[in-house]
Amino acid sequence: MPPPTRPLVLRGARVVTMDAARRIIDGDVRIEDGRIAGIGGKGEGGRGKGKAKATTVVDCRGLVVLPGLIQAHVHLCQTLFRGLADDLPLEDWLAKRIWPLEAAHTEESVYWSAMLGGAELLLGGTTAILDMETVRHTGAAFEALETLGLRATAGKCLMDAPAAPAALREPTDRALSEAADLGARWHGRAGGRLRWCYAPRFVPSCTGPLLRAVSDLAARADAVIHTHAAETPVELEMVKRATGHDELSYLDSVGIAGPRAALAHCVWVDGEGIRRLAAQGTSVVHCPSSNLKLGSGIAPVPEMLAAGCRVAIGADGAPCNNRLDAFTEMRLAALIQKPRRGPDALPAAQVLELATLGGARALALEQEIGSVEPGKRADLVVLDLSGPHAQPDDADLVSRIVYSARAADVRHVLVDGRIVVRDGQLKTGDVAEIRREANRQARRLRRVLTG
Amino acid sequence: MPPPTRPLVLRGARVVTMDAARRIIDGDVRIEDGRIAGIGGKGEGGRGKGKAKATTVVDCRGLVVLPGLIQAHVHLCQTLFRGLADDLPLEDWLAKRIWPLEAAHTEESVYWSAMLGGAELLLGGTTAILDMETVRHTGAAFEALETLGLRATAGKCLMDAPAAPAALREPTDRALSEAADLGARWHGRAGGRLRWCYAPRFVPSCTGPLLRAVSDLAARADAVIHTHAAETPVELEMVKRATGHDELSYLDSVGIAGPRAALAHCVWVDGEGIRRLAAQGTSVVHCPSSNLKLGSGIAPVPEMLAAGCRVAIGADGAPCNNRLDAFTEMRLAALIQKPRRGPDALPAAQVLELATLGGARALALEQEIGSVEPGKRADLVVLDLSGPHAQPDDADLVSRIVYSARAADVRHVLVDGRIVVRDGQLKTGDVAEIRREANRQARRLRRVLTG
Repeated sequence: MPPPTRPLVLRGARVVTMDAARRIIDGDVRIEDGRIAGIGGKGEGGRGKGKAKATTVVDCRGLVVLPGLIQAHVHLCQTLFRGLADDLPLEDWLAKRIWPLEAAHTEESVYWSAMLGGAELLLGGTTAILDMETVRHTGAAFEALETLGLRATAGKCLMDAPAAPAALREPTDRALSEAADLGARWHGRAGGRLRWCYAPRFVPSCTGPLLRAVSDLAARADAVIHTHAAETPVELEMVKRATGHDELSYLDSVGIAGPRAALAHCVWVDGEGIRRLAAQGTSVVHCPSSNLKLGSGIAPVPEMLAAGCRVAIGADGAPCNNRLDAFTEMRLAALIQKPRRGPDALPAAQVLELATLGGARALALEQEIGSVEPGKRADLVVLDLSGPHAQPDDADLVSRIVYSARAADVRHVLVDGRIVVRDGQLKTGDVAEIRREANRQARRLRRVLTG
Repeated sequence: MPPPTRPLVLRGARVVTMDAARRIIDGDVRIEDGRIAGIGGKGEGGRGKGKAKATTVVDCRGLVVLPGLIQAHVHLCQTLFRGLADDLPLEDWLAKRIWPLEAAHTEESVYWSAMLGGAELLLGGTTAILDMETVRHTGAAFEALETLGLRATAGKCLMDAPAAPAALREPTDRALSEAADLGARWHGRAGGRLRWCYAPRFVPSCTGPLLRAVSDLAARADAVIHTHAAETPVELEMVKRATGHDELSYLDSVGIAGPRAALAHCVWVDGEGIRRLAAQGTSVVHCPSSNLKLGSGIAPVPEMLAAGCRVAIGADGAPCNNRLDAFTEMRLAALIQKPRRGPDALPAAQVLELATLGGARALALEQEIGSVEPGKRADLVVLDLSGPHAQPDDADLVSRIVYSARAADVRHVLVDGRIVVRDGQLKTGDVAEIRREANRQARRLRRVLTG
């Protein structure tokens, strides 16, 4: 359970609610028991009301409150590999760098990789993630997430097919039994802030029996399934050869589809595939930086949204980005569609939906997070847009957030009503220690590549 | 003349020199009379050497020194229009928003627009720009640039053709005579830091006589010519219809080509055009954010570099970006080529060249700026890459700068050896005053659109 938090008021902010009417409200955000108790009542919140419990007041005049940003596809275990795999295509990137490095992970390096990535995420206004770890030591990542106070749905990577790298491949039963153990231990921990997901890596590295079992187990555990799909033509071709089906049909046939499934990338999906994803209610997780950096392509996001698909956004892992920055992903998501579909494609307001409401749906937490509304969890970002780069100050606020704002504009961050970043400083971890330990582990891992 | 500066030492940094061998040197950077006097001699600089003049020592241990970043296409007069023209195609963007707003500019609004944009540029590590102002009040922009201490080559926008908007069109002679007056007043001011350029807007808004005169006058004054070219197919078609030539041939025929010419955009250039640009030694200024945001397309930069073209980089104006951030442009320049040309296209090292050496060439200042070498002007950026987003710290340094670093990592900035940003704070202007006055002017200008 999270520690009981005192009632808290963010006083006098401009609140981008992302409620159904997309209201922007000037006023206070009142937080009780980790949830939003009310919005409005400018300047009055939490003062002289004779409440029994003392209320913490955070002065947010001149600042902007947003729903905490959500990234629905990250690999925290890869944060230590940032800068070790630049300018390579996906298949080489995986086989020559990422897989050998993942195989060399220890419990300690997984922990510090998650601490490093989690610190960057929180400092940049990301309050919730859908995370795919590596095959081993996933418990260590959960421990880091528990410490940092980030909301996370995370899973051990599952790989049991002959095509998976030998150093990471597991027998199907062992993979599934460890998954079940991790789920039993972590699903719902920290007052529900930590959740388990099933994370088969992608079709080419998983057998049909594994994927079908994942579908059943996820349904029974009410867990999300987190995987990759349709990232490159090479992948599509591999799946076609191995299964005789196109990848999305195959995933559907093994039960990985629908509101419980989050498919990262979906770059190479045609009109038929888009209609199928929309009808299923499957979440697509768009990763624009990663798709560009690995040369994968540009996902047809405007077409997906027009068809009614559920779309979220994510940075993917640090080595294919090399940031874990929701502001970078939002701006890029908007920009890359415009040469394809015209300058009015994917306007700012739609992009902010991907990083809030869309992310909440991909985590199957749309009742709990994704907007600033009474009753929802108090996962909030407080932005300072007073810098020269975000002026004039009366331009459209959502445009300022998507096109001009940056991670460094994040002043405060709350998760479950707990202040995890205050005045730009991480409160739940010592950044100097994280840097030192992460670098120590990274140097050890790097030796795997050089000798 | 710039104020005489005391000798200064940046002590103990890691210096990315961008010299011919692309050396990265651990040591001191010694600065005298606004120029780099030496690099190296770790930890000794400026101490106990019995020099006559007192030396200022800036502790840069753990920090990274780069050549000041150069953006060779900006419109400071448009900074106040940021967020007022989102999600529109170029032609509407110009006719419905930018031109009416430029026409409404006063001396005061041009001044504060330049102060706002200049502050953002310096705080983000850009030390030199090639700037196109609007038709009127260009002197006010130079005054702002003189105050801020940014290195700038700037010009009044020239438009004399019937197709130019009536509120900004000038008779050819009046345009050229004001240009000559501005050049006489500002070219070489502030110890050479401020320079004049001729800035015909683009072919469709200029007559042949104006363009030919510009070519002659620029040659006589040893000035750069700064214009737009080949940004959209609509523009190419207009030029073809009006002149019978393709745009680059036409520009060549009126003398706008060669090392003195900087052509922003060049998105729609074929192999023949690329060969011509390379043979001429014309500078292309790549503006990736702007080209995406306006839906213009993706310039064939790898092909240009392979052919030997001179290529620089720029943010363009705030309303088509909406940042003026060299780090954003560098990272995006690398990423957008990879789906087109493979993940090894435009690697980090090449991108950093665009923003340093390439920019220096576009400003015809390659003897003076663009690298950290003895004898060059001390235009320098000091980065703090200790944040979680830039770890691990022993990954390739240039990759960390291009893919991970961000404007907010800029700790100190020097132009001509003068510290213009220290500890992330602008020393040459009051940011609160700039924000207040810029917003006051922006609110006045906005009434042009609404009423």
